[in-house]
Amino acid sequence: MNTFGDKFRFTSFGESHGPAIGGVLDGVPAGVRVNLDRVYEELDRRAGRVPASDASGNATSENASRPVVSQRALSEPDRVEWLSGLMDGVTTGAPIAYIIRNKTARPEDYDHLRHILRPGHADATYLSKYGIRDHRGGGRASARETASRVVAGTIARQMVEEQGMHIHAWVSNLYGQPLPDDSQLLRSHLAALVSQFPGDSFGAVVSCVITGMKTGLGEPVFGKLQARLAEAMFSINACKGFEYGVGFDSANHRGSEINATSGGLLGGISDGSDLTFRVAFKPTPSIALEQDALTVDGLPVKLQIHGRHDPCLAVRAVPVVEAMAALVLADMML
Amino acid sequence: MNTFGDKFRFTSFGESHGPAIGGVLDGVPAGVRVNLDRVYEELDRRAGRVPASDASGNATSENASRPVVSQRALSEPDRVEWLSGLMDGVTTGAPIAYIIRNKTARPEDYDHLRHILRPGHADATYLSKYGIRDHRGGGRASARETASRVVAGTIARQMVEEQGMHIHAWVSNLYGQPLPDDSQLLRSHLAALVSQFPGDSFGAVVSCVITGMKTGLGEPVFGKLQARLAEAMFSINACKGFEYGVGFDSANHRGSEINATSGGLLGGISDGSDLTFRVAFKPTPSIALEQDALTVDGLPVKLQIHGRHDPCLAVRAVPVVEAMAALVLADMML
Amino acid sequence: MNTFGDKFRFTSFGESHGPAIGGVLDGVPAGVRVNLDRVYEELDRRAGRVPASDASGNATSENASRPVVSQRALSEPDRVEWLSGLMDGVTTGAPIAYIIRNKTARPEDYDHLRHILRPGHADATYLSKYGIRDHRGGGRASARETASRVVAGTIARQMVEEQGMHIHAWVSNLYGQPLPDDSQLLRSHLAALVSQFPGDSFGAVVSCVITGMKTGLGEPVFGKLQARLAEAMFSINACKGFEYGVGFDSANHRGSEINATSGGLLGGISDGSDLTFRVAFKPTPSIALEQDALTVDGLPVKLQIHGRHDPCLAVRAVPVVEAMAALVLADMML
Amino acid sequence: MNTFGDKFRFTSFGESHGPAIGGVLDGVPAGVRVNLDRVYEELDRRAGRVPASDASGNATSENASRPVVSQRALSEPDRVEWLSGLMDGVTTGAPIAYIIRNKTARPEDYDHLRHILRPGHADATYLSKYGIRDHRGGGRASARETASRVVAGTIARQMVEEQGMHIHAWVSNLYGQPLPDDSQLLRSHLAALVSQFPGDSFGAVVSCVITGMKTGLGEPVFGKLQARLAEAMFSINACKGFEYGVGFDSANHRGSEINATSGGLLGGISDGSDLTFRVAFKPTPSIALEQDALTVDGLPVKLQIHGRHDPCLAVRAVPVVEAMAALVLADMML
Repeated sequence: MNTFGDKFRFTSFGESHGPAIGGVLDGVPAGVRVNLDRVYEELDRRAGRVPASDASGNATSENASRPVVSQRALSEPDRVEWLSGLMDGVTTGAPIAYIIRNKTARPEDYDHLRHILRPGHADATYLSKYGIRDHRGGGRASARETASRVVAGTIARQMVEEQGMHIHAWVSNLYGQPLPDDSQLLRSHLAALVSQFPGDSFGAVVSCVITGMKTGLGEPVFGKLQARLAEAMFSINACKGFEYGVGFDSANHRGSEINATSGGLLGGISDGSDLTFRVAFKPTPSIALEQDALTVDGLPVKLQIHGRHDPCLAVRAVPVVEAMAALVLADMML
Repeated sequence: MNTFGDKFRFTSFGESHGPAIGGVLDGVPAGVRVNLDRVYEELDRRAGRVPASDASGNATSENASRPVVSQRALSEPDRVEWLSGLMDGVTTGAPIAYIIRNKTARPEDYDHLRHILRPGHADATYLSKYGIRDHRGGGRASARETASRVVAGTIARQMVEEQGMHIHAWVSNLYGQPLPDDSQLLRSHLAALVSQFPGDSFGAVVSCVITGMKTGLGEPVFGKLQARLAEAMFSINACKGFEYGVGFDSANHRGSEINATSGGLLGGISDGSDLTFRVAFKPTPSIALEQDALTVDGLPVKLQIHGRHDPCLAVRAVPVVEAMAALVLADMML
Repeated sequence: MNTFGDKFRFTSFGESHGPAIGGVLDGVPAGVRVNLDRVYEELDRRAGRVPASDASGNATSENASRPVVSQRALSEPDRVEWLSGLMDGVTTGAPIAYIIRNKTARPEDYDHLRHILRPGHADATYLSKYGIRDHRGGGRASARETASRVVAGTIARQMVEEQGMHIHAWVSNLYGQPLPDDSQLLRSHLAALVSQFPGDSFGAVVSCVITGMKTGLGEPVFGKLQARLAEAMFSINACKGFEYGVGFDSANHRGSEINATSGGLLGGISDGSDLTFRVAFKPTPSIALEQDALTVDGLPVKLQIHGRHDPCLAVRAVPVVEAMAALVLADMML
Repeated sequence: MNTFGDKFRFTSFGESHGPAIGGVLDGVPAGVRVNLDRVYEELDRRAGRVPASDASGNATSENASRPVVSQRALSEPDRVEWLSGLMDGVTTGAPIAYIIRNKTARPEDYDHLRHILRPGHADATYLSKYGIRDHRGGGRASARETASRVVAGTIARQMVEEQGMHIHAWVSNLYGQPLPDDSQLLRSHLAALVSQFPGDSFGAVVSCVITGMKTGLGEPVFGKLQARLAEAMFSINACKGFEYGVGFDSANHRGSEINATSGGLLGGISDGSDLTFRVAFKPTPSIALEQDALTVDGLPVKLQIHGRHDPCLAVRAVPVVEAMAALVLADMML
């Protein structure tokens, strides 16, 4: 299943080491002006290629040395080829299709993984389900697939913002440490962790707030706004938990204490107040430390994954969380 | 949106104070023998009508005095009228439809709520979205709707169990207090809380484990097993959070610590190990304590809700969690 | 698959000889006033129970003797029990559910068919697909199922009519004889055929015109208005052909002759002109004449079907054609 | 709506004069070997580029001079870029995406049509629905879109053929003249008509037979095999009618005459016998003769369409009919 949404439908395709990834966005009304530069800004955020003023709007001069993203991401420019659905930057009502070529695909880099099932990855389950496995970088399970979501999500986002709704996410907890919305602080904390635990990776929580919420989004029973958001967030790799409003902490409270707090919705329908939710991400499963693994034949093996991987995948998940939230809202708005 | 599932589709209908609630279950293969007694057992669990040996299988002799469910539930027997899709207790491949009449509907009991929007309920959002409100017991947002899910879920469950998968849920945390899977202990804890905070209600967490998992359930990208489960759980009223496997606690860990723990699935696909998840439920919003509320005209008013309500709605949510999990698994099995 | 429509979704359930048939209509906006008497009028048309002024509006005094429908239909009053989704005759936005009980179910009437596969019926294909067969009157394949469609369709129709669109169908060709829209003439022709070919049945064409068409209904490529209408008509038993506008006759023409004729739509989208289509129905497969048949064990047998059956099922299909067209239009309007 | 199918889902995108057309095919099982040469054969048939032995398998030596397709088609080679879902020609279970670039796009060729609504085309309805119109060759309504269907359909077809089912279509009636399945005869008839009525176009009927039908394809009530086929055929531009088995002619018969004839299915479910259907196509609306038209401002204008268009679009529709039938069968097989 590679399509998300009922009326505003996003279909994703492409493997990380095939010729291209891409998407089709169907159900977009005609006459929407799309700012294509905005798409590149969001792709840069996802790739960790942050310009002089970073994604959170805080000035920073230390981009060159920041350890938050992999080298591969930095050297992998995402150029979007728009194939259909737009005329002079305005939607025509036809499906919007686009591709991003995988320029640096070097399948041979993955040859040493041909017979190994990486722990914490989808290698074993894909092999079991499909009887076939694309060992080159994870195939469809690769985080690269999320670039396609960011493109579609940015179009959705512009429609959502035209209605006055704004989506903002940030890493609010890193390896157990609560953090304010400050990307410089995040980087220095992450750098310190990387020094302390070299070769390892770290779990985190991404918080998101949607301001300017329209009332009436969401439907009772099986189309609840929170259910769609949860489904969207759990479609992101490494997501292990989702909560909205008071969330899991509501289990520690009495009705008289929290009855008046809605978290942005009641009965599955937005009430116009800010919508807040949090998404837990496990640590990147690809670590440089030696791990126990199994071969495809079930033999135990010591695995050391080379190359540079994100020490905390939640960092790059932030724009993906926003993109998926935008897709949910756009679908519910129509 | 009142339908859940793609291939095994459950459609729910009915208001708590209309003539009946019910459901239609489409996509059920022909030739499945359904144990209708089992449906009543599950309905009794949902209603809090526990027989001599309680739902968890522990013997107990104090059912009469237990305070876990409302009097209304106890006096409201759920009789299922099977309308179609079964011949001599075996499915025919045709849609299975059933209704449960609302025998004790007394709309006049709710007359004092006609002009008041109850805090923590869907009253305001329904009114805003539909321009109409069924003030009698919450309409579609009533917990009574879940009885229809339990019927469908029990049919799904029998199909799931035939494949060797077993779903078991219990209240694992009550008002911040971790609890073992022991319904007698749960009752005594809840009774103590009711004594300590009369008229109030309490949040809780329901844990669920699915054993005997088949491998290969779930699909990559937008049909991940965890995404379907999350969507299912957030369709239950008062659900505020969902996590699976290590869940939110994965944010406190390093990759080297938890990489080998799957929580039952990887890449959205079950790997055959036990699937574990937890669902947070807020306290019942209907409490006997006086609350601040608004009228439909926006005027502040003091509200005191009469009648008997569950002090902890998570208790009765346990079989609903199981029913929704069964619907997810049955849909993915087909 | 027992659900029709994307946004305005109708789910049908029930077997002809089970306790009840019924339906659920989801996606109906709140605040629509439904004339429930109109539902009975349409059910009477479907059942052949035409009042003093017949369905086409032409006065007639010879109802008692007309041979167009079976005795069973006349003695089988359709009482609709409304279960949900309506408050004082106005829709609430919740799913509208209803049932019609099968009062005269006498399964033993069908005992002689237990081991015989009726020619022209779905008996053999159901048995092959499901491994089980409800021999009592055809189960889901019974024409009785269409009563449920007529109920849903009449609600849809009222919404469609509020937008100024009117749907009208009639038998325009009976056993090769073109007919004007005149139900009395239809009856006399049919009576003559029944005299000439006693015990046999007759094919026919139903024509339909929709006036007051809104522009812009339908979507390019895979949601074309004509595709939805065709799908709807072929969901009716015994439908063998569908054409719109010039239809099959366009194969006999040159572009210069018929280019300006749209038939109500172009590129799948209505253009505001009248929409016209025709539906071919084969003769009722149940005839009183002796037929060659097979038993479930594959043995040849002579079959004589007792009881009274419609000599021309297209007559009672007329309101079903209108109901299905209304469901299509309502779905596309939303 | 640009997606067709429930389990085997084809999404089409692209405008005739944009950078590319293409498609995404989701739900294809892993491990299916795809003959990519076959895709080119079918694209050649659709484009009218028939090799030495023509599409029907009859030898012919007069291809160079045949007038059945436009010059544009002949000079427009369709090169498919496979983007995902295949590894060494075998499906991986991931979505198969592909594009075909529009190499000869010369939007300026269409400048004279910028303000004119062509009769018989979707120009007026698109403009009315979307408020925007791609005047360059019809945009999404262009027949070029069907090349994308042929690619997807050929993959579907190979899966269908592996199950022993074979789909074969041909022009069986041209401008009222019944024709055998003989492409040379078709060409000579069409050449004669072109001589007789220069600049005009001609309606036709395409017949299709599916041999080796599996039993049990299709579902009762709203998933009938004939309903899916009808929906598929009416998604093809210029389709005005669809009938299966005895079709419209059943209206001229008595039950006793045709009761034993199923046309390949009963109750919506295939019975294993050959499935036959016919599709009526109107004449190409683009003709060289001068026509009355309207400008976008509603003023009458004389329109003469330059360039070379197919005198009978049904000829090139033959492989599209087969492709759509293959998509229906593949979806129902899964």
